[in-house]
Amino acid sequence: MEDKTEREEGDVFAPAFDAHGLLPVIVTSAETGEVLMFAYMNEEALARSLETGEAHYWSRSRDTLWRKGETSGNAQRIVEMRTDCDQDVLWITVTMTGTGACCHTGRVSCFYRSVPFGKAAGQKLMPANATRRFDPEAVYGHESAAKGTLKSS
Amino acid sequence: MEDKTEREEGDVFAPAFDAHGLLPVIVTSAETGEVLMFAYMNEEALARSLETGEAHYWSRSRDTLWRKGETSGNAQRIVEMRTDCDQDVLWITVTMTGTGACCHTGRVSCFYRSVPFGKAAGQKLMPANATRRFDPEAVYGHESAAKGTLKSS
Repeated sequence: MEDKTEREEGDVFAPAFDAHGLLPVIVTSAETGEVLMFAYMNEEALARSLETGEAHYWSRSRDTLWRKGETSGNAQRIVEMRTDCDQDVLWITVTMTGTGACCHTGRVSCFYRSVPFGKAAGQKLMPANATRRFDPEAVYGHESAAKGTLKSS
Repeated sequence: MEDKTEREEGDVFAPAFDAHGLLPVIVTSAETGEVLMFAYMNEEALARSLETGEAHYWSRSRDTLWRKGETSGNAQRIVEMRTDCDQDVLWITVTMTGTGACCHTGRVSCFYRSVPFGKAAGQKLMPANATRRFDPEAVYGHESAAKGTLKSS
């Protein structure tokens, strides 16, 4: 789809994957509105997500398709999916299953630390909704957790 | 910062810019929680955002630093900034100034179309909070709008 007006104003879904065949995906909670995580879909992950209503992603570190929750049991049911103006980013709103924790560290969200700015710029990170809902070692095992091979899975 | 545990569990802000020196930034509304836009900061854009409390980005299409709202008047005051587990993505919550429209198309959010999924997969995009708050041609001029050189500015 080359026409900018059609891409921005049209009703045809024509996702613009990047040079690596990926689309950034913002994931928020249908219950709280909090941003839970940020990940990428390739064409197949998007197709499976659209078909099943369950979030699938492409892992850049593991070079593989994954269904969120396949290891941890904390899957994502898609409530709404939106595309942005130029169709190169997706925003999905989800309901978590399992413990409700999205992050591989056991927290609800991957965004569990605030960055001080303005007068407080340069100060230390502050916890924000940082309570753990599960023990990462118990779920992923020490080795995987240490290697970081199961990020947000 | 090489230590994964320190990066994930520590209180030192150590943003992990990608190979292009960029950090993806998710922007949500402090009033409604809606995702407004998605953009990138380089080191300088992040430094200015932290110092001033006003969102600055790096434009990949124009290859330049920009302060959101410098053309449109629709700037962003940062209310909260969070980093994710491995510190390679930021989430900022903002209050919009001006008309309150974030998208260069004149909408509040860049995410003004829903993508049908599940049984409805493959159907047409549906408008979602798609009312325009300003006329892009009047704000950016026909040429700039047509060339797409002022995305979300």
